[in-house]
Amino acid sequence: MTARRGSRSAELPGPDRRELEALREIGRHWPSANGGRPRQRATLPVDPTPPGGAAETPDTRLGRAALVARRIVSGAPLKSTAIAGERMRKLIALPVLSSDALSSVAYGPEAMLAVLVLAGSAELGLALPLAGGIAVLMLAVGLSYRQTIRAYPQGGGSYVVASDNLGRLPGLAAAAGLLTDYVMTVAVSIASGVAAIVSAVPAAGNLTVPIGLGAIGVLLLGNIRGVREAGMAFAGPTYAFILAIGSMVVVALVQAAGHGFAASPPEHVVAVEGAGTLLVLRAFASGATAMTGIETISNAVPAFERVEWRNARRTLDWMLVLLIALFAGTVLVVHLEGIVPRAGETVLSQLARRTFGGGLLYGYVQAATALVLLMAANAAFNGFPRLLYFMAQDGHAPRMFLRMGDRLAFNNGIVVLAVAAGLVFATFDGRTNALIPLYAVGVFLAFTLSQAGMVVHWWRRPGHRRRHGIAINGTGAVLSAVVLAITTVTKFSQGAWVVVLVIPLVVVTSLRVRREYRRADSALAPRPVQPPPVATREREECPEDVRHLIVVPVDDLDLAALRALAYAASLCQPVLALHVSPDDEEAARFHRAWEAWGDHLALEVVVSPYRAVVGPLVQYVDALHRESPGLMLTVVLPELVVRHWWHRILHHGLGPRLRRSLRHQPDTVVTTVAFHLPG
Amino acid sequence: MTARRGSRSAELPGPDRRELEALREIGRHWPSANGGRPRQRATLPVDPTPPGGAAETPDTRLGRAALVARRIVSGAPLKSTAIAGERMRKLIALPVLSSDALSSVAYGPEAMLAVLVLAGSAELGLALPLAGGIAVLMLAVGLSYRQTIRAYPQGGGSYVVASDNLGRLPGLAAAAGLLTDYVMTVAVSIASGVAAIVSAVPAAGNLTVPIGLGAIGVLLLGNIRGVREAGMAFAGPTYAFILAIGSMVVVALVQAAGHGFAASPPEHVVAVEGAGTLLVLRAFASGATAMTGIETISNAVPAFERVEWRNARRTLDWMLVLLIALFAGTVLVVHLEGIVPRAGETVLSQLARRTFGGGLLYGYVQAATALVLLMAANAAFNGFPRLLYFMAQDGHAPRMFLRMGDRLAFNNGIVVLAVAAGLVFATFDGRTNALIPLYAVGVFLAFTLSQAGMVVHWWRRPGHRRRHGIAINGTGAVLSAVVLAITTVTKFSQGAWVVVLVIPLVVVTSLRVRREYRRADSALAPRPVQPPPVATREREECPEDVRHLIVVPVDDLDLAALRALAYAASLCQPVLALHVSPDDEEAARFHRAWEAWGDHLALEVVVSPYRAVVGPLVQYVDALHRESPGLMLTVVLPELVVRHWWHRILHHGLGPRLRRSLRHQPDTVVTTVAFHLPG
Repeated sequence: MTARRGSRSAELPGPDRRELEALREIGRHWPSANGGRPRQRATLPVDPTPPGGAAETPDTRLGRAALVARRIVSGAPLKSTAIAGERMRKLIALPVLSSDALSSVAYGPEAMLAVLVLAGSAELGLALPLAGGIAVLMLAVGLSYRQTIRAYPQGGGSYVVASDNLGRLPGLAAAAGLLTDYVMTVAVSIASGVAAIVSAVPAAGNLTVPIGLGAIGVLLLGNIRGVREAGMAFAGPTYAFILAIGSMVVVALVQAAGHGFAASPPEHVVAVEGAGTLLVLRAFASGATAMTGIETISNAVPAFERVEWRNARRTLDWMLVLLIALFAGTVLVVHLEGIVPRAGETVLSQLARRTFGGGLLYGYVQAATALVLLMAANAAFNGFPRLLYFMAQDGHAPRMFLRMGDRLAFNNGIVVLAVAAGLVFATFDGRTNALIPLYAVGVFLAFTLSQAGMVVHWWRRPGHRRRHGIAINGTGAVLSAVVLAITTVTKFSQGAWVVVLVIPLVVVTSLRVRREYRRADSALAPRPVQPPPVATREREECPEDVRHLIVVPVDDLDLAALRALAYAASLCQPVLALHVSPDDEEAARFHRAWEAWGDHLALEVVVSPYRAVVGPLVQYVDALHRESPGLMLTVVLPELVVRHWWHRILHHGLGPRLRRSLRHQPDTVVTTVAFHLPG
Repeated sequence: MTARRGSRSAELPGPDRRELEALREIGRHWPSANGGRPRQRATLPVDPTPPGGAAETPDTRLGRAALVARRIVSGAPLKSTAIAGERMRKLIALPVLSSDALSSVAYGPEAMLAVLVLAGSAELGLALPLAGGIAVLMLAVGLSYRQTIRAYPQGGGSYVVASDNLGRLPGLAAAAGLLTDYVMTVAVSIASGVAAIVSAVPAAGNLTVPIGLGAIGVLLLGNIRGVREAGMAFAGPTYAFILAIGSMVVVALVQAAGHGFAASPPEHVVAVEGAGTLLVLRAFASGATAMTGIETISNAVPAFERVEWRNARRTLDWMLVLLIALFAGTVLVVHLEGIVPRAGETVLSQLARRTFGGGLLYGYVQAATALVLLMAANAAFNGFPRLLYFMAQDGHAPRMFLRMGDRLAFNNGIVVLAVAAGLVFATFDGRTNALIPLYAVGVFLAFTLSQAGMVVHWWRRPGHRRRHGIAINGTGAVLSAVVLAITTVTKFSQGAWVVVLVIPLVVVTSLRVRREYRRADSALAPRPVQPPPVATREREECPEDVRHLIVVPVDDLDLAALRALAYAASLCQPVLALHVSPDDEEAARFHRAWEAWGDHLALEVVVSPYRAVVGPLVQYVDALHRESPGLMLTVVLPELVVRHWWHRILHHGLGPRLRRSLRHQPDTVVTTVAFHLPG
């Protein structure tokens, strides 16, 4: 199987007319006598109709155990046709697609306050205007994405929109931003979720990293099982979270009304920095992480019931209302209660404790928070592999991301995300506030490029909604760009520089991946043969051009070697046995055995005074090629196959090394003849 | 190449008569027409005489870089004939072979005192009688090994002597003891050497582990360069150490003579344990680690100049005198100076500081100590791979330990030792006193079994030296056994239990390795064919029995696939192309391309609804075999070969997975046809 497996999946066109023509041209040069179809088929020694295939059952014990483990982890395989019928009702879509956005209420306000408090508790009041600004931003960006939903009913991820309207490079930049953002979503959500747990159960404080990595592991396994189970089970936590935060805000407001909405003075904290513009902007940038996830619905329009775009829009409206209400409400009541961010307990936990006391309702708020954050991380596990899939379709990512697992999930992308997020999470010891500075850059880069792309989209498309679209998306683009600039500048030294480095790296890698695929595809594409077919190197598309020599490296005249020799001889082509000997004495011994056997084949003995075996063999093959260019050498290697893995250490032959060394030789085919040792 | 490569090296006999007879029998059944020698040789399309081989030059950039790196690390390759001329003069042999034994003066006395001081400084005087006892032991064991040298001039390692005289199991037990001992020698010597450095440069105190691992790395690289440079450079440190300790003892004795040999009272240390029998025995066992290395000379008799055994004996005599003098002298002057072991500075360093002050002479003592300990560790790097080589010759260890590197060093054994010693060293944070309890068990087990083996040796050999030999070796055996018992019991809970567990584990592994090799060898040994040759499965030692079908899995009709198809067709055997398709639509597209090409070969399309490719292919092959047992299936796989390693990620085909799955199928040969992508 060549690397292009997967490239011929249903989404890609079959061979084009030029390719078919080239195939026809190549086929015309095949010898009719030898390769003629009817004759060939008649000589098959066995009926080739496909036998009724049972499930794949590996032959080794380890292999069978691995299969059972895989079935337990990922469930029974799903047919490709099962991919339909994954449409979501609005009541399901809302919680599933907005868990990412809504859950950021759990860390956004806290991230903002954690910066403000550096200027002392007196400046915490600045949170109210900042939150107002962020709410305006949410509205502007949200309205922008309403436009995208209408314009891209097939799903308008930032990568698609930016590529379509702005070109390859902006598209890849948006994709790179989104990819880092997905990784950070998982890391931040899990960190914040663990913080919610630790707030309720302080004893778990030094288990942050293991708990978080365990959660990432659960998401990994769950997603490899596939998207099927996603809908139902994942809707609950979001509603529970909306209910928890909503009722908490309402109760706190009612309590505040009791004393005339007078804010409690916050616990005194000494300032360590002045309340300069930079600090305020940094607080704003930190709070803006609450905007992550707004774009999710516009990516997933095709997953809605008909009429898709209308349902998606209505869901987005609801999400925006809920997001702004919960975010602004939380900041407001945190201010009224005079809560100060501190280590060991989240702001939300403090709020819940003051509002509900420490009892059952408090526990409910914490559990709902932790769960919705887990769902938000899970949303990234849907988005990240899908984005890689789109990129791979364009040749911008390795084609392994095109491959669907047997549960219709993109396993490779899921594994990459889990590993990357796990590494980031562990590197920062799972501290939310250390992760926040890395978060927003990727998001706002993608927002900006996507909205700018929409502006170009409207520009090119005359019509009654043109000016309206340009106005809304233009506003979104400009505001996103401003936040992107603020975020990058104010958080650069806190960690944003990592993302600023990573994003161009991803873009460059994508471009190089594409270049390599284009080069490979053009090298592999069938080309018409030159009118007078000449036998050049590596041009054996015609069997009659091939001159054979079969070389069998023989170490010992044991049954494995004899089997390989017999196989080679049975192919009815010239055979040469090759023996590498450390010294003349050993060579003489080998000759004796060879003569006893009957000297049935040509034999060459090479003496290798440095005891190397692979080197002399490769040199020999090389020399044969120099002597006779175009000769097709088939190297037949006897290979011992063992039943238990640890026996492989004992019978470690030179086969793998030889195969690696020979694969770079032109016109060299390596054949492995297995000899099965009894288990 | 099968796994037996190496098993036919100069030390092992060629095929025996029964094997030659079997080969003759097998050869007789080869078809004379097809495989007849003169005819076959005439048809070779190229002259097979071995071309003058230049040095191996890999084809890839990575490969060339690796070769250059290897040459820098390990030097130019050496011919096998260079292995002669490694004989050592006594003046060189003494320091090289006794660095292990003599260097133990650096930690033996300290280990003993470190236990005694637990009973308070008042009990440190017990060191004198204990040291006397150990000196007697040294003499007894040393004399024992004089006997071994005479009886085993070919080199009488404990493994050889115990195997020869006591049988397989005791031999393996001795070998296991020695293997653990070599690992511990490296760990303890390096730990002790680093302690000598840290005593002189306290600032290096928290770099113990990095310095030690660095030293092990240096030894690893040095030994991979080969034994050539060993002699000269390695003689210096031992003489320097003898001079350093010797002169220090003499100076200290002269100083002590000045005040009538009155011992200075040691600094007061409070007792934490009573001075019971157990403690005293534990101190004795710890001090007995100074005996490690006594056996080295008897292993290396063939390395001496002629007459080997006589020169070896004389060297051993000298070593014994030096060892006993330095050991007893050190304990004596430590007692006279009233030195108490303490953390952060070794006893030897304290002694040197008191004797010479802190100046240049002090520095010289510390440097010589550190160097000789490095040499001692180096000695283990000679012994460990050589022991594994002997074990591998008997089939008791993986045959990869038979293979010599191109510098005549046993690289595999060297690497295993470096890794094991590095792990042990790092696990115990390089603390000598934590390592000591694991040390002596293996040594004294080997001593005991080796001396007991010598008793049996004399017993079986009537002659005038018989009673003399039995008496000396008997004494050595009994004393070693007593120390072994004392060591095991008193240090069991301090860490000796690890060794007590490891040794039987090594023995059992060795036995299982041997069993597997015997089974494999008997499965591979040529057997006479049954009189009427029947075509059963996996019995194709005769080419005319082979019925072929060549299967070519084709994913895409690109040039790589066309090349594989042409190769398959050119072998003039029936060919069947196989295409696995995810759905009917894709299958139709493939058929269109196939027809355009001309439908030259039989084609089967298998639809795989679960998108798996490897599974259906393996099932298909399996079904063909069930339908037609004995059919030889050759699976021809097109494979893309790339120039840069990172391109491999992009073109990751199914070849490796398919090869792994097919290797367990009987009568299945896997052939890889490379298609080289432009770099």
